[in-house]
Amino acid sequence: MKTAVFVEPGKIEVQDLPKPVIKNPTDAVLKIVRACVCGSDLWWYRGINDRKHNTPVGHEAIGIVESVGDEVTNVKPGDFVVAPFTHGCGHCAACLAGFDGNCENAQTETEVVGYQGEYLRFRNANWALVKIPGQPSDYTDAQLNDLLTLSDVMATGYHAAATAEVKAGDTVVVMGDGAVGLCGVIAAKLRGAERIIAMSRHADRQALAKEFGATDIVAERGDAAVKRVMALTDGAGADAVLECVGTEQSVDTAVKVGRAGAVVGRVGVPQKAEMNTNNLFWKNIGLRGGIASVTTYDREVLLDAVLKGDIHPGKVFTQRFDLNHVQAAYEAMDHREAIKSLLVISD
Amino acid sequence: MKTAVFVEPGKIEVQDLPKPVIKNPTDAVLKIVRACVCGSDLWWYRGINDRKHNTPVGHEAIGIVESVGDEVTNVKPGDFVVAPFTHGCGHCAACLAGFDGNCENAQTETEVVGYQGEYLRFRNANWALVKIPGQPSDYTDAQLNDLLTLSDVMATGYHAAATAEVKAGDTVVVMGDGAVGLCGVIAAKLRGAERIIAMSRHADRQALAKEFGATDIVAERGDAAVKRVMALTDGAGADAVLECVGTEQSVDTAVKVGRAGAVVGRVGVPQKAEMNTNNLFWKNIGLRGGIASVTTYDREVLLDAVLKGDIHPGKVFTQRFDLNHVQAAYEAMDHREAIKSLLVISD
Repeated sequence: MKTAVFVEPGKIEVQDLPKPVIKNPTDAVLKIVRACVCGSDLWWYRGINDRKHNTPVGHEAIGIVESVGDEVTNVKPGDFVVAPFTHGCGHCAACLAGFDGNCENAQTETEVVGYQGEYLRFRNANWALVKIPGQPSDYTDAQLNDLLTLSDVMATGYHAAATAEVKAGDTVVVMGDGAVGLCGVIAAKLRGAERIIAMSRHADRQALAKEFGATDIVAERGDAAVKRVMALTDGAGADAVLECVGTEQSVDTAVKVGRAGAVVGRVGVPQKAEMNTNNLFWKNIGLRGGIASVTTYDREVLLDAVLKGDIHPGKVFTQRFDLNHVQAAYEAMDHREAIKSLLVISD
Repeated sequence: MKTAVFVEPGKIEVQDLPKPVIKNPTDAVLKIVRACVCGSDLWWYRGINDRKHNTPVGHEAIGIVESVGDEVTNVKPGDFVVAPFTHGCGHCAACLAGFDGNCENAQTETEVVGYQGEYLRFRNANWALVKIPGQPSDYTDAQLNDLLTLSDVMATGYHAAATAEVKAGDTVVVMGDGAVGLCGVIAAKLRGAERIIAMSRHADRQALAKEFGATDIVAERGDAAVKRVMALTDGAGADAVLECVGTEQSVDTAVKVGRAGAVVGRVGVPQKAEMNTNNLFWKNIGLRGGIASVTTYDREVLLDAVLKGDIHPGKVFTQRFDLNHVQAAYEAMDHREAIKSLLVISD
C-alpha cells in the first residue's frame, strides 16, 4: 500500500509498504478516506524535534473499517469511522474521568503507524474509534472535511475551551490563529461564550475567526496585546483563555489577559517547561490543559454538532492534495500558505 | 488601646497605640473579640520574609462593629461580625466572579493595620464583613472559635478544595497537616469527597485529620508518598489534590499524585516561583488556587455550616492566650507546640 514516510527533515516521500494486518485482538485495520497534516507535524518536518527517519507519518484520519481483532465488538468491517490520534481503552481511570488522551492502556508500541496512507492499523479500536452514521458517499465534500477534524484539530480546540472551563456568557480570549486556535473559537461559541477575542494578525485567519464566531480581533502581541484586551474588557480581563500556541510569550500573555480566577486552557505543546507560576497564584489564575480527550468530546458533543451542521470546522482546510503530493501538503503549511492541508486518499 | 506589634524577628510586643477612627466612608471600626496567629505570620516572625519593624500585626479576627463610615449600610454599630483578611468591595470583576481575595478595589493603604489588638479599622467594610447572628454571648466558647476560623484559615482550606474542584464521590489528597490543611480536610468532606487521604506525620494532627473526615493517613514524603497514594488508589491517583504547604517538594508531590485531569488547588504560598509545568501538560493536571475568597465562601457555605454545627474548624486552636501573652502565642506555633494559637481579646 502507498503511505507517506518521513525521510529526513523537509522531505516526505510516498513509499510502498506492506498492508497492515491485525496484530492484537484490540486492533482494527482501516482503509483511509481522508487524512491531513497537523501543525505539530511541522516540528519534526522542520528538524526542530527529532523523529526517527524512514517512519510512516500522520495522526488524523477518517476511514472505513476493513477488519477487526477478536475483542473489537463496537465496530465491524464496513463501518465509517473517525480515527482519533488518541487511543483510549474506555475503562482506565483516565478514560473514565474523560481524559482519554491520557489513557493508561495506550502505551505506544515500538512500531510507528502513520495515518497519511492507504491503510492503518489502529490500536484500542473498540472504544477509541468513533462511528459515523452511513457511508462517505452520504456526505458532501465539506461534511467529510468537518468529520475529518474530529480526529484531532476540532477536539483539540475543544479541549482548550473545556479545560479553560468556558461557560455561557463568558468573555473568552483565544491565543493563536492556527487551525487549532480557529477550532478553539468554534468551541468557545459552542459552549456559549458571548464575546470571543481572537488574537490574530493574518487577514485570512481573522476572516475565518470571525466566521467561526469571534467578536473581536486583536492583532497586537505581548504587552500591547494585554493592554488591548484590558481596554476591550473595561479593565476586567477575560473569564477564560484558550492557549493554542505553546510559545513562552503566548503562555505569558494568556496568563496576563485573564481576570482573577480565570483558567488558561493550554493545548499548544509547551516550548519551555519552566515558568513562573507565582503570576498564577497571586491572581488566582488557573492553568489546565494537555492532550485532548478526542473520543470523549466526539461522542459527547462534536460529532452531533457536525452532523447537525452547527459547526463547520472543515473550513480550516484551505488547500487540498492527493497522497502523491503529500510533500506539497507539508510545504504549504510550512510556508504558511495553507491554514491546514487536506489529503484526499480514497473515495 | 493595646495592640500586638512586630518589633523585630522573634519579638512581638503589646504596645499602647491610639484607638483607630474612621478615615474613609467605607471603613468600620471593630472592637475585637478574638484573634489568632496564622502560619503565614511565621514567615516574618522567623525573619525569612521582610516586614517593616514596629508595625501592628494579625489578619484574622471576630469582633463587634463600633462605628461605620457613611457608605457602610450593611452593618451597624453593635453587630457581631467576622473580619476576613480580605477586603472585597463586592462589585469589581474579581468580586463578582467570586474571587474577592483579588478585589480590584482593595489596594493596601500605607497604614498597616493589625487584627491582634483591641480595635481595628477595617477597609471595604460594607461588603467584606460577614455578619454573625446575635452576640458573642449567644455562642459557646467552641462556637466562637469555629466562627473565628471564618476570617481566614477555614476559608483558605475551602479555597484549596474549591479550586481543586472537589466534588461528591471524589478521592482527594490533602498535602499539609497545618491548620489550613486540616481545614482542607473539612472542606473536602463538606463538598462530598468520599475518600480523603491526609499527608501527615504528627500523631496529634493525624488524629484531628481523622476527626475532620480523613479516611487514610500517609506519613511518607516525596516519591515514597506518591507510591503510597498510588497503592491506595489502585494506581489511579487522586481526583483532586489540595496543596496547603507551598514548598517545592509539596507542589511536586501534589502534581504526581493526581490522576489525568485532576486539579491541584494551591493555597500554600509558593516558596519557588519557577516550576516545570510540562509535568502538568502531559498528564492534563490542572494548577489553580491563590488567595482565598473569604467573604464569598463564608456567605455561600461556611457560616451556615458553622452555625448548624456541621463543621468544627475551631478545633485547630490547640493553645489559648490573652493579648498580654501574644509573644508566647507566636512561640507556641514557631516551636510547633500549637497547631494554631488563639488570642482571646475581650468578652
